[in-house]
Amino acid sequence: MSEQQKQQTAKVYEVTVTAPVNIAVIKYWGKRNKKLILPTNPSLSCTLSQDHLHTCTTVRASPTFDRDRLWLNCVEERIEASERLLNCITATRQLRAELESKDPSLAPLSKWGLHICSQNNFPTAAGLASSASGYAALVSALAKLFELPLSEEDQSKIARTGSGSACRSMFGGFVAWQAGELDDGGDSFSYQVAPATHWPDLHALICVVSDAKKGVSSTSGMQTTVQTSELFPTRCRDVVPQRMEAMKRAILDRDFETFATITMKDSNQFHACCLDTYPPIFYLNDASRAIIQLIHAFNNQKVDPATGKPVIRAAYTFDAGPNAVIYAPKGAMRELVQLVTYFFPKPIDRPSQAYYSDQFGLFSESEYARLGSDIYDESVAEFKDKFSVFPPGAVRRVIHTSIGDGPRLLTSHSSSLLNDAGMPKRARD
Amino acid sequence: MSEQQKQQTAKVYEVTVTAPVNIAVIKYWGKRNKKLILPTNPSLSCTLSQDHLHTCTTVRASPTFDRDRLWLNCVEERIEASERLLNCITATRQLRAELESKDPSLAPLSKWGLHICSQNNFPTAAGLASSASGYAALVSALAKLFELPLSEEDQSKIARTGSGSACRSMFGGFVAWQAGELDDGGDSFSYQVAPATHWPDLHALICVVSDAKKGVSSTSGMQTTVQTSELFPTRCRDVVPQRMEAMKRAILDRDFETFATITMKDSNQFHACCLDTYPPIFYLNDASRAIIQLIHAFNNQKVDPATGKPVIRAAYTFDAGPNAVIYAPKGAMRELVQLVTYFFPKPIDRPSQAYYSDQFGLFSESEYARLGSDIYDESVAEFKDKFSVFPPGAVRRVIHTSIGDGPRLLTSHSSSLLNDAGMPKRARD
Repeated sequence: MSEQQKQQTAKVYEVTVTAPVNIAVIKYWGKRNKKLILPTNPSLSCTLSQDHLHTCTTVRASPTFDRDRLWLNCVEERIEASERLLNCITATRQLRAELESKDPSLAPLSKWGLHICSQNNFPTAAGLASSASGYAALVSALAKLFELPLSEEDQSKIARTGSGSACRSMFGGFVAWQAGELDDGGDSFSYQVAPATHWPDLHALICVVSDAKKGVSSTSGMQTTVQTSELFPTRCRDVVPQRMEAMKRAILDRDFETFATITMKDSNQFHACCLDTYPPIFYLNDASRAIIQLIHAFNNQKVDPATGKPVIRAAYTFDAGPNAVIYAPKGAMRELVQLVTYFFPKPIDRPSQAYYSDQFGLFSESEYARLGSDIYDESVAEFKDKFSVFPPGAVRRVIHTSIGDGPRLLTSHSSSLLNDAGMPKRARD
Repeated sequence: MSEQQKQQTAKVYEVTVTAPVNIAVIKYWGKRNKKLILPTNPSLSCTLSQDHLHTCTTVRASPTFDRDRLWLNCVEERIEASERLLNCITATRQLRAELESKDPSLAPLSKWGLHICSQNNFPTAAGLASSASGYAALVSALAKLFELPLSEEDQSKIARTGSGSACRSMFGGFVAWQAGELDDGGDSFSYQVAPATHWPDLHALICVVSDAKKGVSSTSGMQTTVQTSELFPTRCRDVVPQRMEAMKRAILDRDFETFATITMKDSNQFHACCLDTYPPIFYLNDASRAIIQLIHAFNNQKVDPATGKPVIRAAYTFDAGPNAVIYAPKGAMRELVQLVTYFFPKPIDRPSQAYYSDQFGLFSESEYARLGSDIYDESVAEFKDKFSVFPPGAVRRVIHTSIGDGPRLLTSHSSSLLNDAGMPKRARD
């Protein structure tokens, strides 16, 4: 072994990153190429703050690792069983091998085994899709570990082959995923429309809705829609392209009314296409529908005296499940949290903090104590008579967060999810 | 007063008819002309048997009546407040006046007041649309009273101006309403595709679903869809015309699989367009969705050994409300009634007969007694583990009926809803 090789062997090649969740305001649904995960239409999302929701992933390469291993939330997964994981690992390793072949002084990481440990800071039980943040973290970590000269857009193409919406988690702020036209997916990547700092007043309230029934997985559901919905081609061809342009303009202009209206219409149309699928796919339940009606009532409450039109102050959107994400200006959140916690009382056996944690200090201590049992702001008290209170637990958790940045590199040694031996610090059998 | 006039004055000019309910399998939704009630697309329905569901209407003309009066389910209504009632009364009276002007020997009924009394034999609380049977009965009765030389197709044009779907209740069996193209509605009428006797094996099971929330009325809802849904034009232009032709063929061929598949797809697409409306319109609730999933599971249960494909034995359809109508061959009804009554137990305070009356003798006395508490046919017992039982009362009533004939003239004096003085036999203040 050469001196260089000895040094390389002794050095720890490890990277830890976090990556954010994103929630689409123009929905991705349907693939034109299943293997490469090329979508039938472009989409657009907001990246949520990693302060509240993220996936943390540590990747380490070592000549002492006899094979690739991956632990997801403390449980080892079979990498070889997942085409999507293999897509991302193989693509980045291939690029590393090309670098190494051009520069023999580089450590031969592409030939070493990898240990990958990944954890979400939100419970899987929360029902939030973790594949977007998970694959964004994985690709971001591997790109850094392998020192690949890839832009975020290039990285987004690789993340896309893990999970379509993961490509949008490669950026912070407001992110578009262009569908592209090429057969090899070379033009199907995401890009940033505006950074999080462009519109700091935009916040998000995630309402985690209980659902007894397990819905159809988005992967299989979206292809059934492509195959059977007679309305879906109209959405892809005629509706979404126009909405993409209007939404980008709305974001650049910080035009909340347009942003909100398109967001709500697009969520509804996505679920309409699910219903037009055969057999039909349902993700919204009675609690989801009640949240939709509550938000429309909230938006109809105040009228702009200048225009005589209602002032749109909130927008709902639903992914492939019953959970609502409500986008609203920060100033509307105090009222919205009162409404949601009042009409959807916390599960009986759950502590208040686990149901709703006042991350932005909207309420005084005494107000927080009364939250859910009453609506005390007069501005929204009138809703008490207009809607029915759901049984406790119909909404299991309410998370207030904001728009945030893209994947972060963590440099502190303590951030690593692997111990000195390269095994998970926390693991379950 | 001439002798002829005296005789005419003494004679009682009165007609009593019943008219049926119809449930569309290709849905009417959207008007191209609101005043004339001209639809954006053709539709097709099955007429349900009047043995179980009908509107009964008595109309009487008399020179002693100083004005037109109408009682609906024992309550007097203000005719002049209803453009739709006026449409039907004015149009038929106008035609009568033309007859009288040509034949002076006719009694001058067009100049006399009318008393109209109308009753449904199903509770309004059942949540079944009664406007179709109501306007069909009204127009049918007036046409007979005035002895108008109108075909059923001509009558359907007048009924259409009362309530769009009423035009389809002018016929028994399987009925198409052609949208027409003329501005005056002259070609927008219904016609019979096949009589009820063509397919006596086709039965219907109506599941009356409880819904706390009052939905958007179909009259206002459909115009909001026309104005705001970006998917709706595709339905009207590209989807429905094809489905109409395929459905007519399926009916003529008694091809239940095609009939059922189009019925389910069209119900789903109608509700998809409601969801794509802005703000969205919801008619299906969690119980409706569960019935849909139950029917798909039922249809997937048996496989045809010859083709290897599932045997479609039931079809759901939902109008502008949460109630399901399940079309199925009579032979499948025994299993379907067991499934529905098991997963949707009767309201606690309701007698079994009021929940489900075994109109076709599907069950023995001891079987009927156990209905709802168990599924005793092995053929469907496996479903017990696959779905959750809803709380009692989620379905309030289950009505088993068949396809039936068109409006009936009742000739027995005792059928009249008016007493000798021309006032309702039963009335409430």
